[in-house]
Formats: sequence, C-alpha cells, structure tokens
Amino acid sequence: MHLLIVLAHPEKKSFNAHLAQQAQDTWRAQGHQATVLDLYAEQFEPREGDWHYSSRLDAGHFDTMQEQRHHWHQQALPRDVERHIELLLRADALILQFPFWWFGAPAILKGWMDRVFVYGGLYQSQRRHERGIMRGKKALVVSTAGASAQACAANGRDGDMRLLLWPILHSLHYIGFEVLEPYLIHGVRSGLAGEAQAQQRSALEQRILDYRARLMGWEQWPAIPFNRQQDFTEELSLKPGAPSYSPFVRHLP
Amino acid sequence: MHLLIVLAHPEKKSFNAHLAQQAQDTWRAQGHQATVLDLYAEQFEPREGDWHYSSRLDAGHFDTMQEQRHHWHQQALPRDVERHIELLLRADALILQFPFWWFGAPAILKGWMDRVFVYGGLYQSQRRHERGIMRGKKALVVSTAGASAQACAANGRDGDMRLLLWPILHSLHYIGFEVLEPYLIHGVRSGLAGEAQAQQRSALEQRILDYRARLMGWEQWPAIPFNRQQDFTEELSLKPGAPSYSPFVRHLP
Repeated sequence: MHLLIVLAHPEKKSFNAHLAQQAQDTWRAQGHQATVLDLYAEQFEPREGDWHYSSRLDAGHFDTMQEQRHHWHQQALPRDVERHIELLLRADALILQFPFWWFGAPAILKGWMDRVFVYGGLYQSQRRHERGIMRGKKALVVSTAGASAQACAANGRDGDMRLLLWPILHSLHYIGFEVLEPYLIHGVRSGLAGEAQAQQRSALEQRILDYRARLMGWEQWPAIPFNRQQDFTEELSLKPGAPSYSPFVRHLP
Repeated sequence: MHLLIVLAHPEKKSFNAHLAQQAQDTWRAQGHQATVLDLYAEQFEPREGDWHYSSRLDAGHFDTMQEQRHHWHQQALPRDVERHIELLLRADALILQFPFWWFGAPAILKGWMDRVFVYGGLYQSQRRHERGIMRGKKALVVSTAGASAQACAANGRDGDMRLLLWPILHSLHYIGFEVLEPYLIHGVRSGLAGEAQAQQRSALEQRILDYRARLMGWEQWPAIPFNRQQDFTEELSLKPGAPSYSPFVRHLP
C-alpha cells in the first residue's frame, strides 16, 4: 500500500507539515510506503499556461484542454507534471494536506489540480466519476482553519466548511477517487500567548492522537456517497426517482 | 464610477478576455472608468510565501496572517500587492472574469485572493462582512464552463455551479462587497467544427449581447442575500429564529 501526501504550506515547521509527517509515520509504521510531495519545497508552478507546452497542437491559440491531451499522447507533458502523475498512478491512497485559505486550498494546490489532472490522461468523457482512472483508490482532505469549530459548522458564520470544500472533494471524485469524509481541524491560530496558547497546544495534541488512530483504521474511514453516472439522463440531469447523495446535486422542487 | 475587471485566462484571445473587454467597453460607453487587470499578462505570482516579505516580524517561522498584517502596517507589502490593493480601494465595482477550472477559479486568481486580501488591511475581526472595508461596492463573478447548462444546474451531474462558486462569493462578501448573482456561461468548448461550431458561435454572441445589456442595468443586477453579523451568537452560531439566507449557513435540524 502506497500513500501519497500532497502538502501545501509555505512554512516547513507548520502544523500542516507536522500533520503530513504524522500521516507518513503512521502509514510506514504499519509496513506501508508513504511519500510526502511538498509543493512549496519543490517550488511547484501553479499557473497553467502556454509556456509549459513544447509541442503545441495550435501555436496560435492556447487551449488548455486540447494541449493537455495532445501532450499527454505525445508523452511531452512538463517534467514535473509527468512525475506527479506517476506518483498518483502508483499510489493506493492520497491525502491533500493544506490550510484553509479563503475558504479553499492555497493557490499552489489549486494549480496542482489545474496542471496535473490533465485532460485526456487523468480524465476524459468515458473515464470520469466511478469510471475514472483513480477508481479503487481513496482520497482524504485534511485541512486546518483558524476559525472555531462553531464558526465552521453548518450553522456557523463562516459557512459549513465541509460544503466549502466541495469543489475539491468533487474534483477528486471526478477523476475516480473514492472520497473520504474530510478531516478538519479548527482553531489553528497563531499569535496566542499564555493560557490560551497552552490550551490550544493541548487541544491540537489530542487531535493528532485522534488523527493517527483514525489513520490506523483507514479501511473504516467513512466515504462520501456520490451519485453514479446511471443516476443521470443523457442530458446529465438527475433522473426522477434517483437518489440525491450530493448536497450539490438536488432534485428540482 | 470606476470598474475593476480582474481577468484570469492564459490566452490573450480567449472568450474570457473578450468578455473582459466587453465589460470595459460597456462601462466606458456610459462615461465611467474601467480598468482590466490581466493577471496572466503581468505574470502575477499566486504563491503566498515568506520570500514576499522583506521586513519579517518573525524571521524564524512564517505565519501568513501575522506577516501580512505587519507588512500592511509597515507599508512594506510586495509592490504588486500594494498596487492591486490601490486598484481595489479606488474601484466602485469589481468583476472577476475566469474560466471554471476544477470547479473553481484558476490558481492565478485564487492566489490573487491569498496574497492581495491581506489580513490587517483588507479585513480584521471588527471589519468583516457588512462592516468590511469594501462595503458599498459591488462584486460580480463572471465564469465560463465547458459543460452544458443542464450539467451545471442544481440537478446536474457536475453539481450546482452557483454553489460550487460559493467559496469565492463568500470571500468577496467577507471583505465587505455586496455580491451580485454570478453570470455563468456554459457550453464554452473548444474543438468544435461545422454546424456545432456555428451553433456555439451564435449562442455565445447572444450571451454577449445579454451580458452587455445587463451591465447597462448594473444598478438592477440582483444581489445575493447574506446573513448579517447580528444573526449570529457570540459563539458565531446562527441565532434561533434568525433568517438563513446562505445555502452554507443553515439551522441545524
């Protein structure tokens, strides 16, 4: 079993880096392989654009999807993208580890999806969702927020963090992953002192123990139910009577 | 009246660039000012990180929020960030123009939010939501998707596109903008030929006319209702009996 942990935090000694390390240690202690892909450490370029493509299908007009597919088939993708795709294909499990910035992932991780999830290679019309290339593999989002658990709850002022992460969860499912319920850690704030700092430290240590225990029981980690392609009409609307699993796919009133 | 259009597309001749130009032309034709900030053209750096900060509060440990606030107060923010903040403060209206990549904005635009919406400057605990620094200004998200309108509908296979954009809409509201209903254009696909291409061209031309007409009636563009801070308890939970405007802030069952 090979776990790939993609880490997106600019500080090497961050709590996020610590969580990535904990996941790697836990996985290895069980006799498995685990690799941390530290996007900041390798200065990953998050901007998708024409300059990455050496063998253009159309040199006059840059079309991202067309050039991704073309370069996939020509085996001419950028070297970093090729390497990251190899890591993904080799992995049995994926963890995305990042701080919650502006209600989503840091740009470096969004750009990793923009550049690495290439059209023609990691997905195409007949290879998506439960037929996606990553089927049979599990993906987990682990994210830290400065706000409190109450503020990030379904009735919290910041909005339901699980739903705010949906674009990422949905993207992982789009390329075929079985997507696990995300692991969210709130109240990860800096600038605390004295009693508040001590309380936070103790709370985060508890969370790390909990996280490690849950990783040990990886097979039992609950997955998010998604609709299957057969639940939709040819026009891609939810069929009457089909289940509505996703909060983003509802029967019209 | 000054409109700032932030454009995030790698191709200068893209439909997105065309839409940005249309908005600028329409705005100017009414005697207003309009500026296009083309993030790709100026090779905007989307990665937030320590190397942007010249006058570190803590040189040993990079804390994004602390360094943002410190450099804002020291007037030592990176020059591009300073310039973009000036553009935002001068604007009466903002348009974010981007293609829908992996159910969100391209990384270059996400990173623009990560780096430009600085803590201490563009928001702080007493200056958020309806008390945010951008209050009284309107923001509009204009996004193009390759998928069909049916696939992006509330009962579509790709999930409700309006909800998938929520992290961005919510972020704009967080710094005080009045957030307008997003303008979504579906079926923007490449690689079409013959009749399908002609049909698409005609459909997109209609959308441009519609977009221009709606921009002319900017004052009537419907806004998204958000909860106010008074709707939440001190613990930031929705008060019993308070309205629940946002699909991401719900009363618990």
